[in-house]
Amino acid sequence: MSGSLDFTPRILMGPGPSNVDARVLQAMALPSISHLDPGFIEIMERIKTMLREVMMTTNELTIPVSGTGSAGMEAALCNLIEPRDRCVVCVNGVFGSRMADVCSRYGGEVVTVSASWGQPIDPDDVREALEGGPTKLVAIVHAETSTGVLQPLEDISHMTHEAGGLLVVDCVTSLGGHPVKVDEWGIDACYSGTQKCLSIPPGLAPLSFSPAAVAALESRTTKVANWYLDMSMVREYWGEDRTYHHTAPVNALYGFHEGLRLILAEGLEARWVRHQANHELLVAGLAEMGLEILPAPGYRLWSLNTVRIPEGADDVRVRKRLLNEYDIEIGGGLGELKGKVWRVGLMGASSTRNNVNALLGALKTILR
Amino acid sequence: MSGSLDFTPRILMGPGPSNVDARVLQAMALPSISHLDPGFIEIMERIKTMLREVMMTTNELTIPVSGTGSAGMEAALCNLIEPRDRCVVCVNGVFGSRMADVCSRYGGEVVTVSASWGQPIDPDDVREALEGGPTKLVAIVHAETSTGVLQPLEDISHMTHEAGGLLVVDCVTSLGGHPVKVDEWGIDACYSGTQKCLSIPPGLAPLSFSPAAVAALESRTTKVANWYLDMSMVREYWGEDRTYHHTAPVNALYGFHEGLRLILAEGLEARWVRHQANHELLVAGLAEMGLEILPAPGYRLWSLNTVRIPEGADDVRVRKRLLNEYDIEIGGGLGELKGKVWRVGLMGASSTRNNVNALLGALKTILR
Repeated sequence: MSGSLDFTPRILMGPGPSNVDARVLQAMALPSISHLDPGFIEIMERIKTMLREVMMTTNELTIPVSGTGSAGMEAALCNLIEPRDRCVVCVNGVFGSRMADVCSRYGGEVVTVSASWGQPIDPDDVREALEGGPTKLVAIVHAETSTGVLQPLEDISHMTHEAGGLLVVDCVTSLGGHPVKVDEWGIDACYSGTQKCLSIPPGLAPLSFSPAAVAALESRTTKVANWYLDMSMVREYWGEDRTYHHTAPVNALYGFHEGLRLILAEGLEARWVRHQANHELLVAGLAEMGLEILPAPGYRLWSLNTVRIPEGADDVRVRKRLLNEYDIEIGGGLGELKGKVWRVGLMGASSTRNNVNALLGALKTILR
Repeated sequence: MSGSLDFTPRILMGPGPSNVDARVLQAMALPSISHLDPGFIEIMERIKTMLREVMMTTNELTIPVSGTGSAGMEAALCNLIEPRDRCVVCVNGVFGSRMADVCSRYGGEVVTVSASWGQPIDPDDVREALEGGPTKLVAIVHAETSTGVLQPLEDISHMTHEAGGLLVVDCVTSLGGHPVKVDEWGIDACYSGTQKCLSIPPGLAPLSFSPAAVAALESRTTKVANWYLDMSMVREYWGEDRTYHHTAPVNALYGFHEGLRLILAEGLEARWVRHQANHELLVAGLAEMGLEILPAPGYRLWSLNTVRIPEGADDVRVRKRLLNEYDIEIGGGLGELKGKVWRVGLMGASSTRNNVNALLGALKTILR
């Protein structure tokens, strides 16, 4: 048994991972040092500072969780929910449903607010749900990777706080590609993944807790029902005391450090402009071919484009040809959109004019 | 804000991480591809095959968990425990205590079997605990990283199964350095970390479930109270269906693949012999300096040596001098052994004659 790692590199235009800058990859290949080494502690400190800038927050508790984006979701929820807490969960795609599942596993009493897949959540429906009883938190997806919908958050944030609740936001597919203004928008718990618009390999989940979320954590009457993700301990590890909790994924964090550095060197606003421009280039090119985007204008993600599969096109065959003949990966539909849409990611380093043109050219040939 | 990654590389002889072969580091720097790419699926298949060989098991459910060793501990326990299950947890160091904490968070009724720190667990004490009532599982640490104790497992395995329980074993600090015979010893759930004797950067947790453990998982009457680590879903992702659960940490798995390949190329037995020989070289050299190992002969880990700090030596100062003047990392004591022992790791690529001699030479100068 051996086998070398001789796979074919691809242009990654699926729902993640996105392509990774060679400097991030090379950072991950630096020699491992101890997670207790003074040199590594300095890296952790710089990571916290840079991550706060990327998440547009001054929240002290802003760290990468040692797991993928899904672990970030679980970390955000398990630390805030105690048994019988009322949780209003907004569901208009796979990741909203997942939040509801996670909340219920921690004993939350889940009230769902739904919208059709491809539509944003209506703030009035959230208001109505909040009127149903004292609510611990409202959980909502900013960028639904399964539908390509961008969710406006400010109204919902306002009414959640008026009702005394905490706002938990999934920004897995928006952070680093779209504005995610944690402080300005009043997000209490915000999590993301690295392998989308941050263009860092999968394995870490940026997480930020507002002072109100930290206060909820500190005033729990029960232990967090998850040891690995218990932020009351993890934050001591990332804090000044450096109390041992688990061994940080050292090399992944080298890559994270370098990835954050590259993002800030480009500038957040320049990055948003780039993501928007390439999205528009794609949409225009698809329109010329008669192809449509699922969400309505104004609610479309720049980072993840759900394209209606045209009549007569064979979903799987088209994707296989893109992969095998062009080394381009796009995603298929998830859940109830399976077979109905393609998911074209334009995230981070994958969001380039050349990639858009390459995909449009390939699709023209294949769909001809 | 920027800052380059200009830390000082070290000889890693602490409790982990250990030094990593450059080939593993380079594998991690290969281009990311999608976790759904046929090329990546092949890598996942080879990983499962190689990991079974390293864990000496034919267990179908043998995978790396997408988190550090602590996530492996939690995955082993949360999938098997349902509320009010009786759990016999053996505690003779930090990691046994941690297992007890994790069990209780999942609603287990924890019965602890204790031994002094530096002593192994007495099988008779486990037998007595098993007689106290129907027991779902016995949890025990094979290689206590906090004390350097190697725990014999075969008697305890036998009595656990006679009592109808499952045996859960922490082999974080033994796998790849000591024999860990999952099938032969009848271990039902075995987990490890990558950054110890496997010499792969931290971030993944090898995990294997026996058919009996899988049966317990399948016959649960409650959902696993942890979404991210729910093996009923994770195994579908790693299985033939490839049902999406979370995005695998692609680049970490490249490194894992290469690390496993190197281990099997060296050969498990050759690796054990090397770990034992370098341990003996260290112990003999320390003895010449009048330094003692905490556990009694026969119960000493080859991979992690707890050295009693001699009278008059300043714990922190000695470690700082080793780090700053020699670029050698060793660990301090944890918990009740803080200030009383040093922890010298000889794990994986760090277990070499040259490293032992370098440390002995440095200690001779510093302690003179």
